[in-house]
Amino acid sequence: MKSSLFVGVLLLTIGATAQTDRKFFKSKVATDLHLPFSSGVLTDHTLYVAGTTADSAQLAAGIAPEAEARMVMEQIKQTVQSAGMGMDDVVSVQVYCTDLALYDAFNRVYTGYFHGNFPARAFVGVSKLLFGAHFEVAAVAIKK
Amino acid sequence: MKSSLFVGVLLLTIGATAQTDRKFFKSKVATDLHLPFSSGVLTDHTLYVAGTTADSAQLAAGIAPEAEARMVMEQIKQTVQSAGMGMDDVVSVQVYCTDLALYDAFNRVYTGYFHGNFPARAFVGVSKLLFGAHFEVAAVAIKK
Amino acid sequence: MKSSLFVGVLLLTIGATAQTDRKFFKSKVATDLHLPFSSGVLTDHTLYVAGTTADSAQLAAGIAPEAEARMVMEQIKQTVQSAGMGMDDVVSVQVYCTDLALYDAFNRVYTGYFHGNFPARAFVGVSKLLFGAHFEVAAVAIKK
Repeated sequence: MKSSLFVGVLLLTIGATAQTDRKFFKSKVATDLHLPFSSGVLTDHTLYVAGTTADSAQLAAGIAPEAEARMVMEQIKQTVQSAGMGMDDVVSVQVYCTDLALYDAFNRVYTGYFHGNFPARAFVGVSKLLFGAHFEVAAVAIKK
Repeated sequence: MKSSLFVGVLLLTIGATAQTDRKFFKSKVATDLHLPFSSGVLTDHTLYVAGTTADSAQLAAGIAPEAEARMVMEQIKQTVQSAGMGMDDVVSVQVYCTDLALYDAFNRVYTGYFHGNFPARAFVGVSKLLFGAHFEVAAVAIKK
Repeated sequence: MKSSLFVGVLLLTIGATAQTDRKFFKSKVATDLHLPFSSGVLTDHTLYVAGTTADSAQLAAGIAPEAEARMVMEQIKQTVQSAGMGMDDVVSVQVYCTDLALYDAFNRVYTGYFHGNFPARAFVGVSKLLFGAHFEVAAVAIKK
């Protein structure tokens, strides 16, 4: 009984240690510009991915909407992979979009990033995004 | 000691299995129209409910705001119940609304869906929603 | 074997009990005005902080943007601390802002609330917020 209790306490301790495990991921741009956010924060099995836009330089150059959507999704994929996950681990997505006429263009790009089931998603028309972006996309991923 | 260690390893395995349990819920409309999102994604104890609007047909027909709010909340309730939970398991809600003058009308409907304590909630005035909706509501529920 | 199995079942039971632990935090204003949301909902280790604005009275009096940002962050800090956490436990932040020209002003205040790594963050320009607020900020915190 004593030895199994010991194993029990040990198990609880392992659980607690896993709970405190936290990692911050930061893009090169965010680091260089001292921007006050991480690209992603991983706690235990859950990754919060920051609201992500295309690069400000590309946006200033007038990138086309589909290419912009692809840049956003590539950055999100990169953050998700940094945390040791794949896009199929994404469970929730928020899309903030300044022009709902771009809904289909966004979806054409977006659907290519998932195999099988899609995450839950909100798609919301907002008035303005930083750097004149058309899309800002945030997400939550959970490790299987 | 050996037998209790075996139980310990068994417990860890059960925990890991529970962690990987994932279910996707999809509305009939989303399935029929091949829309790229699930109505809800359940991982372990946490359900992410998609940004939900009233049906596009009803919106096109010019449904009244309170009836629209009720359609949204009914759909959310249905997703939450599909995951084996009730509305009192909802811990966080995001309301995106195209007209803040509808705040009281929304609340009159919304409050009827909860008994006891309310979820944490954001209520944000956005410029436009899909299908001309006045409300899009997303949520997180956690199984007790 | 029997005794270690007993400890195993006991451990699972403790886990289940911890899972059901839920606490609701409500601000004095929300309680007094019967507003249909909690300031924060804590389940197990995860705290969902409601979309938070400055006080409506201060907003009506025409508070300056930096002071408004500070009021918002102070309220969030208070909710986080009520749940037994600190600001460095915040992993995800959503900032809804009616005027993106206030980005730098917001950041000057915001950065003072964190030491070390920043949460993942979305920063979105919305059309309107309740009480004429310039900022509404929601968050998720996870206990270390």
